[in-house]
Amino acid sequence: MYRSHTCGELRMEHAGQEVSLSGWMFRNRDFGGMTFIDIRDRYGLTQLVFNMDDDADLCAAARKLGREYVIQIVGSVRERSNKNPNIPTGDIEIEVKSLTILNESKIPPFTIEDETDGGDDLRMTYRYLDLRRSPVQKNIIFRSKLAIETRKYLDAQDFIEVETPFLIKSTPEGARDFVVPSRMNEGQFYALPQSPQTFKQLLMVSGFDKYFQIVKCFRDEDLRADRQPEFTQIDCEMSYVHQEDILNTFEGLTKHLFKTTLDIDLPDFPRMTYDDALRLYGSDKPDTRFGMQFVELNPLVENSGFVVFDKSELVVGVCAPGAASWTRKQLDALTKWVQRPQIGAKGLVYVKCNEDGTFKSTVDKFFDQEALQNWANAFDAKPGDLILILAGETDKTRKQLNEVRLHVGNELGLRKKGEFKPLWVLDFPLLEWDEDSNRFHAMHHPFTSPKKEDIPRMLNGDHETMKSLRADAYDLVINGVEIGGGSIRIHDRDLQSRNFDLLGFTKEEAEDQFGFLMGAFEYGAPPHGGIAFGFDRLCSVLNGIESIRDFIAFPKNNQGRDMMIDAPAYIDDGQLKELSLEVTAKKEA
Amino acid sequence: MYRSHTCGELRMEHAGQEVSLSGWMFRNRDFGGMTFIDIRDRYGLTQLVFNMDDDADLCAAARKLGREYVIQIVGSVRERSNKNPNIPTGDIEIEVKSLTILNESKIPPFTIEDETDGGDDLRMTYRYLDLRRSPVQKNIIFRSKLAIETRKYLDAQDFIEVETPFLIKSTPEGARDFVVPSRMNEGQFYALPQSPQTFKQLLMVSGFDKYFQIVKCFRDEDLRADRQPEFTQIDCEMSYVHQEDILNTFEGLTKHLFKTTLDIDLPDFPRMTYDDALRLYGSDKPDTRFGMQFVELNPLVENSGFVVFDKSELVVGVCAPGAASWTRKQLDALTKWVQRPQIGAKGLVYVKCNEDGTFKSTVDKFFDQEALQNWANAFDAKPGDLILILAGETDKTRKQLNEVRLHVGNELGLRKKGEFKPLWVLDFPLLEWDEDSNRFHAMHHPFTSPKKEDIPRMLNGDHETMKSLRADAYDLVINGVEIGGGSIRIHDRDLQSRNFDLLGFTKEEAEDQFGFLMGAFEYGAPPHGGIAFGFDRLCSVLNGIESIRDFIAFPKNNQGRDMMIDAPAYIDDGQLKELSLEVTAKKEA
Repeated sequence: MYRSHTCGELRMEHAGQEVSLSGWMFRNRDFGGMTFIDIRDRYGLTQLVFNMDDDADLCAAARKLGREYVIQIVGSVRERSNKNPNIPTGDIEIEVKSLTILNESKIPPFTIEDETDGGDDLRMTYRYLDLRRSPVQKNIIFRSKLAIETRKYLDAQDFIEVETPFLIKSTPEGARDFVVPSRMNEGQFYALPQSPQTFKQLLMVSGFDKYFQIVKCFRDEDLRADRQPEFTQIDCEMSYVHQEDILNTFEGLTKHLFKTTLDIDLPDFPRMTYDDALRLYGSDKPDTRFGMQFVELNPLVENSGFVVFDKSELVVGVCAPGAASWTRKQLDALTKWVQRPQIGAKGLVYVKCNEDGTFKSTVDKFFDQEALQNWANAFDAKPGDLILILAGETDKTRKQLNEVRLHVGNELGLRKKGEFKPLWVLDFPLLEWDEDSNRFHAMHHPFTSPKKEDIPRMLNGDHETMKSLRADAYDLVINGVEIGGGSIRIHDRDLQSRNFDLLGFTKEEAEDQFGFLMGAFEYGAPPHGGIAFGFDRLCSVLNGIESIRDFIAFPKNNQGRDMMIDAPAYIDDGQLKELSLEVTAKKEA
Repeated sequence: MYRSHTCGELRMEHAGQEVSLSGWMFRNRDFGGMTFIDIRDRYGLTQLVFNMDDDADLCAAARKLGREYVIQIVGSVRERSNKNPNIPTGDIEIEVKSLTILNESKIPPFTIEDETDGGDDLRMTYRYLDLRRSPVQKNIIFRSKLAIETRKYLDAQDFIEVETPFLIKSTPEGARDFVVPSRMNEGQFYALPQSPQTFKQLLMVSGFDKYFQIVKCFRDEDLRADRQPEFTQIDCEMSYVHQEDILNTFEGLTKHLFKTTLDIDLPDFPRMTYDDALRLYGSDKPDTRFGMQFVELNPLVENSGFVVFDKSELVVGVCAPGAASWTRKQLDALTKWVQRPQIGAKGLVYVKCNEDGTFKSTVDKFFDQEALQNWANAFDAKPGDLILILAGETDKTRKQLNEVRLHVGNELGLRKKGEFKPLWVLDFPLLEWDEDSNRFHAMHHPFTSPKKEDIPRMLNGDHETMKSLRADAYDLVINGVEIGGGSIRIHDRDLQSRNFDLLGFTKEEAEDQFGFLMGAFEYGAPPHGGIAFGFDRLCSVLNGIESIRDFIAFPKNNQGRDMMIDAPAYIDDGQLKELSLEVTAKKEA
């Protein structure tokens, strides 16, 4: 070992001991006769002292040390005269007797400090230096801890971690697969898994009963901000369970993770149906850290002569507490904000609930004070509140008002960091009709079971009936972020086959792609269901950070590139030939 | 829940309780008035009783249950009159009150028993049924337990598990990569990692200090028996360590795994140099469960007139204890065995050490009893032993004699199942000369450090000097199987660059492929080293089983195919077009 202790370990009790430390030169302060150096490693910082009077050569050598030099020292621990209560080693310092430079360092392209001066691209190119910064290191260490606690909990509950294969088969359903050409099977390809879905179901057929895996998954999608082509799931499946059992098990896991990583005791998670979530929040992943639930005004605004309301399928609003004091400028900005193409509302109606009990609205021409009072009652609005109303086609208007609610929630500081509000959203539709492709899509995935009571209607119903089918599908939402989702699965061949029919598969396609699964259902498949958590997302939500990239050691950028290793890259012709492939794109210079 | 208890849980203390169980119909025995059914799940078996007198309909329904039907029952626990001491639930049975068939099963294509009648291909095609067999399930559960104990140990030692990327860059060095075409970066490819080697070294540069990961790795090699294109490693790296620190840490891990999974306390692991391993066993992974070390006879056989020995670089043998009684037929068979092309020896000389103190050899014409007595002394052979001797070129002959030693060890029952002999093999050469390509290859990998004292010779030496360089590289061998290997790494840019030169990289190639790593070495790279264990192999060695496939839930066959899901497969032209690819091979019908 190049050290007897780490740089975060020494305390007053070590005073008088001779120790060796190794680490990075973090700070160098020269006070004429004395030189102080902070040496740093993953565990902390320790102050080193060099004294001109004791050893001028050694002190001179110390002064020459550059930032990020890797050094090893031997010295004795002593009490500091000038203690630093902000760091755990702040009571002591090391009187250095010998110094070895283990490696030098060029001047880093950005500062290795908590707040760095490096831009995003530069930090990604030198990610190994970015990862040396304490906040980034803490995130990665947090992730490791979260994985350990996940495994601890699930192991204690008799879950078995089973590794499923990475080289599997491409299926056109769902997102785009990454594929892997097979050299030994010319012209054929493996695909990287988008999730271990079918394998975990097969493990239930095999009798593994409780499965989990913390596993990489892959999706070749156009990368929106904060999507990664490779991401990590906590993937779980259980046999002989109903929805209730799964919710309880994974609510337990989530509570355990909050307790062990943040020391937060979460109360039991509220539940809400998908329909209610859309009605009350315009979203299937509502941020319930704050109220501002939707109130539908249609009965109160009928036949007012205000044509915008009269012709709208839905008139719906939220009440922003204490926002009546917003200026005309603020309200105009908000109106412009909702009219941006990203939101797409035509306009915004607002009602100020004045402190004197009167109301001032943008629709005073059409609604008198009594009418506005009725609205205020519907919202339970208090003097000083601001009512914001949108109108239009139901689905679109709800989506727009969801954006307004979140935006205003931010403005009012209602989405508090450090506060956590989990919510189970239940009873998702089984199928959703897609106008573009003129067919049904699975809302969750094609293996999701309809609710038991809906099965007869699914087997015999007409088109409209299909739209009304509900699934035993559920999402876990925290602070408006979907961190997990799952369902009870189909375990009956005929029902699975019917579902593939509804999703537009021909019998041949279904057999070709999922024949092995339907076959498995014929040999004693138990009832089963499961859930998958987005592990990267879970890390970021627990830390109140938006970007998942902060919790991935070596993330890719929005073009799917690893800027550090410069991948993807061209491969040589020999490799292509072995794979029986030709590239049709022209090589860029 | 479809059950109140599992099928392995009920004991006498539950007698009188009403319980519900769910599981698979395992055995059905009909005794006229009574029907006994064993219901099975992952946890065990429980006996169910149906009585014609109590409920004729229920009993009739039970009789009709087929093998592997999934059933749910409700009933009451009672003491068995006829106890079965072989199973944990053998004291009780369930008097069934209601029976629900949760799913039916066709007759499985092979029996779901500990010993099955299914052939390899059939079991792989229906792997989900094969995995339902208890011994296979136990293997997969063992693997899960081994992973948990690995993480427990390393976590307690402050190791951080960090996920490294799967979509990386192809490097022509080493084995063949699986590549992944990038859609967003036309004509470019990612590669799947053969190991996270460079990433874990970068994590050391980042200051993570102690890293591990249980991680899938990929190699597109022609699959010999028991190789898999995807396999799992316990991958580890530490900073500020010497070889000794790594050996101690991972000897500790290995002891922990043996203790917690097999309840075996391993004594401290012996160590042997690479040179000694080759000299004494003809292999860098000797099976040290038994002796039969090589004895070199050259000084004893000089100028005998026996031309085979006289012209041989090496005359070397082993002494097989108690094998003097082998018949002429057995010895002829052994001689033929060594002459097979797989072994390739020209012939085999043997000396029987008779019980009366005389010797009978195949070379009595050239060597008298006194000479043979000298040989016997060199082998420390006792009356009743058999000395087996090969001669020829040193490397080849050692390899051949290694095969002989292992083969005879098997014949004599010296390679005992349940006995474990770990061994550290140390001081591997840094480079090996490859006659075919007329260049050096890295014995371990290009990032391995030469021993400190060899660095000056490496920087300045000639060709012959390079062959003599030793590395801080080590393998952990158990029972003749290499289960782990690693090295102290280079952390200096110039030394790394010199190594790439020696390995035949041009400056441009080295920069193009590993520029990021050499760049990282310029910004304060600490001394570091690590090790990787073959996790699949570790599972199989701990269980005394040869095949790693028995410990992989969904393995591939020797053609790299997953027979269950039938992958790899052709993908459609649209997918190829999006990837800017054309397949040059003809599609098979």
